[in-house]
Amino acid sequence: MPARGERPGEFGMIARYLRPLADDPGAFGLTDDAALLRPEPGFDLVLTKDMVAAGVHFFPDDPPESIARKALRVNLSDLAAKGAAPVGYLLGLALPADWTEDWMAGFSAGLAEDQKRYGIPLLGGDTVKSPDGLMLSVTALGQVPAGRIVRRSGAKVGDVIVVSGTIGDAALGLRLRLGTLDGTTAGEGVSHLLDRYLHPQPRLGLAEAVRDFANAALDISDGLIGDLSHVTRTSGVSAVVEAARIPLSDAARALVAGDPTALASVLTGGDDYEILATMPEARLAAYKAAAARAGIPVTVIGGIIEGEGAPAVIDAGGAKITLGRVSHDHF
Amino acid sequence: MPARGERPGEFGMIARYLRPLADDPGAFGLTDDAALLRPEPGFDLVLTKDMVAAGVHFFPDDPPESIARKALRVNLSDLAAKGAAPVGYLLGLALPADWTEDWMAGFSAGLAEDQKRYGIPLLGGDTVKSPDGLMLSVTALGQVPAGRIVRRSGAKVGDVIVVSGTIGDAALGLRLRLGTLDGTTAGEGVSHLLDRYLHPQPRLGLAEAVRDFANAALDISDGLIGDLSHVTRTSGVSAVVEAARIPLSDAARALVAGDPTALASVLTGGDDYEILATMPEARLAAYKAAAARAGIPVTVIGGIIEGEGAPAVIDAGGAKITLGRVSHDHF
Repeated sequence: MPARGERPGEFGMIARYLRPLADDPGAFGLTDDAALLRPEPGFDLVLTKDMVAAGVHFFPDDPPESIARKALRVNLSDLAAKGAAPVGYLLGLALPADWTEDWMAGFSAGLAEDQKRYGIPLLGGDTVKSPDGLMLSVTALGQVPAGRIVRRSGAKVGDVIVVSGTIGDAALGLRLRLGTLDGTTAGEGVSHLLDRYLHPQPRLGLAEAVRDFANAALDISDGLIGDLSHVTRTSGVSAVVEAARIPLSDAARALVAGDPTALASVLTGGDDYEILATMPEARLAAYKAAAARAGIPVTVIGGIIEGEGAPAVIDAGGAKITLGRVSHDHF
Repeated sequence: MPARGERPGEFGMIARYLRPLADDPGAFGLTDDAALLRPEPGFDLVLTKDMVAAGVHFFPDDPPESIARKALRVNLSDLAAKGAAPVGYLLGLALPADWTEDWMAGFSAGLAEDQKRYGIPLLGGDTVKSPDGLMLSVTALGQVPAGRIVRRSGAKVGDVIVVSGTIGDAALGLRLRLGTLDGTTAGEGVSHLLDRYLHPQPRLGLAEAVRDFANAALDISDGLIGDLSHVTRTSGVSAVVEAARIPLSDAARALVAGDPTALASVLTGGDDYEILATMPEARLAAYKAAAARAGIPVTVIGGIIEGEGAPAVIDAGGAKITLGRVSHDHF
């Protein structure tokens, strides 16, 4: 590894580590002030921007490949939940003074792999010196056939509430990292939980099915119940969730059985990056079939009801479970 | 001013200070995961993203209205230089823990005024807690008639080099802020220089003329000569700039006359956010006329020549002026 003093400057760093990621013609090899996007006729663009900061959204010593993936994937998850296919992204990179070439090599390798995996090119961005820690700001652009974006606000009374994958893994993984939860009962499943915190799995394979069948959808980033409350509030409805139906990984199930605080993390912890969708029960079979074709499990966890209150969570006996804070407040 | 403990949380802050800025229907009142943009048929989208950080691009105690304007305007300047008209922007806001309601009120007021001034709506974004200082990441979207973006790479041998406004004011203003330059000879002009550092003037009024007449263009952010070298390198040409023709404000002229280091700041300091364009001399009169209609002065400072070397700067006698670093390296 070159010594600190041999690091390239800004333009050298961009040429070496970022330009190879920008092979889309609209990126102009990152040599211009701006990028170009020729929209496909008949499509709307979906725009999302998520920032992640060291010490807030990831640990400063997380592998650079993982940090890169997380920064990109949390944005792809938003696109998927809106029924959109990826078009391209812009990367804002605020690098602390002590960045190394090794770190940048890992970071750009993580992006390169995910660009290929999810079919999304780097179009442009900005690199600045961070006076403090690493911060990343990704703007992702996706497209949906015109008029077909799936909103949070479309939930209807009688809809079933369906989530993809398993819930709570990342929040439990974070607690294991922070040492606020004993992972013993999860055994080897601990590594699954830690991985789910580091590596969100954006459900782009579900985007078309969401578009075709959901009345409302979002990705679960702030916590299952908090995000569901965004759906119910903007839709003017309420909801009931049956705790026992929430899909858990084996590792999460073991921890929930052993520690009563683990269920609260599952319900409110966030960082799931699974898709919550609501739809009429009549469309459920078709949604499930499409999800199965995409290799993504989906599970009904409750239903949309009349009312204006926060979603209720009930246990197997029908009793209401009292929650503290219902979502992750970033402040 | 409410005490620290009475501040709203994340969602309350967004509702109070940012949602009023997001009245475009595609912003969904900032209540969804993503924003929607229906591209206008026949236009290409131009995408730019500039991050600014406290202690790097502005002073932490600058007025919040000014910080807001700078973050937005440096992006609008990129759009103008590409010949694009503003369409909308996304705001990434990493707020330090000690933010106040007063600060947010000023910040959002600065954005509101500039949105109106430049006709650009807030479409979406993200707000996160900054573990350290304030950082802003704006992604701006503009549009140009399809195929009409103006690149850096189009400069042709024989083109004249034209800049808008005056050069060096912001760099001198920064030196006055930092105390590395004595402003006495500028007299009351000091306030002009300080204002030019705080408040870039994006030349959106020139965008159409740039599109109609320029072979190449960019906005001067890293320094006149450094940015010109981006044009010459990507265009496969070289350039000569006559120092005496570079347009200076009265205040800058006074400082340059009194301190030999001031000229270097003018040539290489950056933060000008003026448009540098190259065009055949035959189009110059039409460009000047269009600029005059927009109320923006433009000045020829040199020409594009054959060659591959860095641009040369010559004095009134034709002798080459030696520069140190030619542009601001952000690292």
